Amino acid sequence: MKLELVSTTKCFEGEQRVYKHHSNVLECDMTFGVFLPPAAIEDKTECPVLYFLSGLTCTHENFVQKSGFQRTAAKEGLIVVNPDTSPRGVELPGQDDAYDFGSGAGFYVDATEAPWSKHYKMYSYVTQELPELVNANFSVLPGKKGIFGHSMGGHGALICALKNPGLYQSVSAFAPIANPSECPWGQKAFTGYLGANRDDWAQWDATSLVSKYASTPQELFIDQGSADNFLAGQQLLPEKLLAAAAPNDHIQTIFKQREGYDHSYFYIATFVAEHIEYHAKLLKA
Amino acid sequence: MKLELVSTTKCFEGEQRVYKHHSNVLECDMTFGVFLPPAAIEDKTECPVLYFLSGLTCTHENFVQKSGFQRTAAKEGLIVVNPDTSPRGVELPGQDDAYDFGSGAGFYVDATEAPWSKHYKMYSYVTQELPELVNANFSVLPGKKGIFGHSMGGHGALICALKNPGLYQSVSAFAPIANPSECPWGQKAFTGYLGANRDDWAQWDATSLVSKYASTPQELFIDQGSADNFLAGQQLLPEKLLAAAAPNDHIQTIFKQREGYDHSYFYIATFVAEHIEYHAKLLKA
Repeated sequence: MKLELVSTTKCFEGEQRVYKHHSNVLECDMTFGVFLPPAAIEDKTECPVLYFLSGLTCTHENFVQKSGFQRTAAKEGLIVVNPDTSPRGVELPGQDDAYDFGSGAGFYVDATEAPWSKHYKMYSYVTQELPELVNANFSVLPGKKGIFGHSMGGHGALICALKNPGLYQSVSAFAPIANPSECPWGQKAFTGYLGANRDDWAQWDATSLVSKYASTPQELFIDQGSADNFLAGQQLLPEKLLAAAAPNDHIQTIFKQREGYDHSYFYIATFVAEHIEYHAKLLKA
Repeated sequence: MKLELVSTTKCFEGEQRVYKHHSNVLECDMTFGVFLPPAAIEDKTECPVLYFLSGLTCTHENFVQKSGFQRTAAKEGLIVVNPDTSPRGVELPGQDDAYDFGSGAGFYVDATEAPWSKHYKMYSYVTQELPELVNANFSVLPGKKGIFGHSMGGHGALICALKNPGLYQSVSAFAPIANPSECPWGQKAFTGYLGANRDDWAQWDATSLVSKYASTPQELFIDQGSADNFLAGQQLLPEKLLAAAAPNDHIQTIFKQREGYDHSYFYIATFVAEHIEYHAKLLKA
């Protein structure tokens, strides 16, 4: 698998890079961001990798440009990889009709419904193909991998971890869509990508997965702004996930509610250092 | 003068706000950013104000979204105000023909040439009208004002300070256009806004102003990335300003060259904390 370097920019003594490649899983060309901390460049020290999954409408650019995550990733010596949010450059009818379905809204599932099933396999892309590419091309510390994300990407981070016990040593989410089967965004996406049978949705729903989880103990760090419009709008439902986790001995949760913070990148920028320090502690343990 | 609140977003325990107002000086409506640190909100502590002037093509948004300055401004207790880069919503022939003249490219001068002279008075706006508005509407510590900027805005910060000895207690610039009379960007802008007579340009050129400066001692903190394309392209010319300052006892310079950094917001994000700490030290002295 060949990587094409789109750009590399020095940043906090590390390098923020952008790459393009052909995805065999998605059957299209994809773009992603990679931040290399100074240690990974200077002496090729093997570093843990932290994956960030973005929310609706985002490309790889939003997190790279607006969160300021590089400051803490440089200090902690983490490689941070952030993919796009859907297949790109494909031609599917209706893909650009709405901000919450199709382009920019892959929801990190493997679609089973035509026509989406041909390309919309973001789950396999972020859990398999992309990590293989990253492992083959960067100085990655084997077996030290974390994942986090925002909103739709928080949902993505949670299901990637819950469906693969032990694959990720650290998991966190900003304002995740925590119970997509029960909210308008998730119901629209799951109906479109997975079909109308709600039984098929459970394997892609963090709250359902948490309620059945019985494997390697997993801690989930959930972050939520109290002034988030989408929390009030019942799109996020973190309380459902917390309630499902409470009786499950295999799941530990850390829940931080941030008074007065909304759903924006200003919120992420404020707390991203705390998340990266959390991941670093677990990944460097 | 009435301010209209466009948005307010909690960020690093402070608030990033955006305001609109009618500018009498520019004869148009203008938008600007204001970050209020926690102290300025909670108990209305009077805080120093730091002005940031942006570069070509920017609006108030770029610095607000991409630099991450709020983290350090919150910690240091500085109010940070950042205006737009030109009059907006006016109708002047040719204003949108190029990225480096007209809209988004006011160059922080008071234009004397028609048709620009009717609206393009960014110097008076940022040194007089905007500070009056800020002083009237926020809990500002009197007589404690700093200014900094990037590229065209670095030029702006330098000339605002050099033309008003003692008005600003701290001055810094990222990759400033340090000698506009001698570079293509500056020559185009000055010819358009000020006319063809080069003698009229000197009062708007930081290097010329430094060579003649004989008032209150002023320190200038100049920052420059070594891999900046516009440095190589002879648009910035910091060496001319440093050479002019060297024999002048009234001007002290701090010059930091940053190995491998370019002209982008990744460069600004990397060093903005150091700049804000520099301003805070002088403004809180």
